[in-house]
Amino acid sequence: MIDRIKPEHIREAADRIRPIAHRTPVYTSRSFDAEAGVSAHFKCENFQRGGAFKIRGASNFIFSIPREDLSRGVVAYSSGNHAQAVAIAARHVGAKATLVMPNDAPRSKVEATRCYGAEIVVYDRLRDNREAIGARIAAESGATLVPPFDHPWIIAGQGTAALELIEQAPQLDALIAPVGGGGLLAGCAIAAKSLIPSIRIFGAEPEDANDTYLSFRAGERIEIPPPKTLADGLRATRPGALTFPILRELAENIVLVSEEEIRATVKFLLTRMKILVEPSGAVAAAAVLFRKLPAGIRSVGVILSGGNVDFEVLREL
Amino acid sequence: MIDRIKPEHIREAADRIRPIAHRTPVYTSRSFDAEAGVSAHFKCENFQRGGAFKIRGASNFIFSIPREDLSRGVVAYSSGNHAQAVAIAARHVGAKATLVMPNDAPRSKVEATRCYGAEIVVYDRLRDNREAIGARIAAESGATLVPPFDHPWIIAGQGTAALELIEQAPQLDALIAPVGGGGLLAGCAIAAKSLIPSIRIFGAEPEDANDTYLSFRAGERIEIPPPKTLADGLRATRPGALTFPILRELAENIVLVSEEEIRATVKFLLTRMKILVEPSGAVAAAAVLFRKLPAGIRSVGVILSGGNVDFEVLREL
Repeated sequence: MIDRIKPEHIREAADRIRPIAHRTPVYTSRSFDAEAGVSAHFKCENFQRGGAFKIRGASNFIFSIPREDLSRGVVAYSSGNHAQAVAIAARHVGAKATLVMPNDAPRSKVEATRCYGAEIVVYDRLRDNREAIGARIAAESGATLVPPFDHPWIIAGQGTAALELIEQAPQLDALIAPVGGGGLLAGCAIAAKSLIPSIRIFGAEPEDANDTYLSFRAGERIEIPPPKTLADGLRATRPGALTFPILRELAENIVLVSEEEIRATVKFLLTRMKILVEPSGAVAAAAVLFRKLPAGIRSVGVILSGGNVDFEVLREL
Repeated sequence: MIDRIKPEHIREAADRIRPIAHRTPVYTSRSFDAEAGVSAHFKCENFQRGGAFKIRGASNFIFSIPREDLSRGVVAYSSGNHAQAVAIAARHVGAKATLVMPNDAPRSKVEATRCYGAEIVVYDRLRDNREAIGARIAAESGATLVPPFDHPWIIAGQGTAALELIEQAPQLDALIAPVGGGGLLAGCAIAAKSLIPSIRIFGAEPEDANDTYLSFRAGERIEIPPPKTLADGLRATRPGALTFPILRELAENIVLVSEEEIRATVKFLLTRMKILVEPSGAVAAAAVLFRKLPAGIRSVGVILSGGNVDFEVLREL
């Protein structure tokens, strides 16, 4: 499986997405490092186009679709950031985008997606099957389905985040990213290992959305009930068929953080570092701040994967 | 007066403060530019050491004090950011710092100042005279008073922000900064005009703290009653004896923004640009966002002067 997504695919993706994706900055913070006991290099995907890393995979995918297929549009299902990314990338190439979004998705994400010119189809996350809705729309309209994580083009696109991070901070001995479906971590792991073969790769999940953690221990993909975690972008119930073997091969471990640790980390990033990171985006930082990584790591790359926070969530914090 | 603070003093200050002050990044935002109708280059002093530009002036001042005087400590009065800056700079050179802070100063700023090892003396902003308290402490202890804005060392230090900004974004045709006592704008005006003689300089004040605006129109320093603006760092009641002549000479105008415009701008910077800027720090951005600058300006440098927001203030937004 790993053989299918090679480092050169990620470098090609980096060229392909350059017209649309930002090269986000890498931050460091003395006060974070002092609390965490490690030197952290934050890849600020909260400053990314559309507010999250998702534009990397979505635009790499959409820009790879043959022209004649693009004319029939694209369709995607997402709790938010993937939806915005698909809407932005589709608009960039003049393709129609239809987004299937849960009725409990953060309002700010739904509104932003609509602002980018996409059509929204709402579903009930506990009752409906979003995959089925997306597949039906695709079948009826001829639109191409843009999967949220489990596709080589998506994985290669997300991997460009690590490619940049290591160019910007070449001395890392570890890298950690949040895990929902695993596309971000899988792509980043392939990119990072190709540049620094000794780099140690970790994933971070909320305790309540521990499907990849459990799957790691079971040695096979485990499905969990729909999680309720504040980290709404990480509510996938099962790792991907493509992403999971990559993570098993390249990642050392998946670590868990509590809801309280996620909240505290969002607060820390906001009040001490003055940057807004959404709960999902702060999960890897939480794992580092609350010392879930093994001892002996001196310099860790941390993907802050998104910054789209609903006002209500922000008030709650 | 202008002759007393030359561009070379600002360059010397830049060398002097290098061990302690960050070279903060300059941000741009398509969505901000689209709303404002101008290309804005944000100097992110909210990411500065201590959370605000104040470290520039305070450290330039404290590092210029003769060694034998430093051993008797420093004293300063401030609603917050200057206090933190003085505490940080004093600790850097091993000097004792005493800070005179109003009893209604944002709690986060008081706590941060205490954390940097300073002694806090509280006063009532409406009843007590902070200058008198500071002067008394200085007289009794032999400590050197670090003035908040009206001193050549302070003004030269603050000017380093514009020196960096213009290195980072050399194509500016205007520059705008918030005005409290005027130290930041005065220093930035001297630095900016020395590098780009044609640059147009503007100050921004809250409508409720319009002492420099009124003084500009009167042609002399006007005193106003203590303002209540949310922009707690800009509650000075009169421009400085040193800063005002510099501003009259170099600034084209002072523009005013409402409390509502300040709030909306803090929100915009947070939710759209994912950065936390305190109300005082967002006043110049508010002036640009709400189109208070004259037409014809294409590229404006905007000082985001600080990011220390109290939790209660954040919740209110």
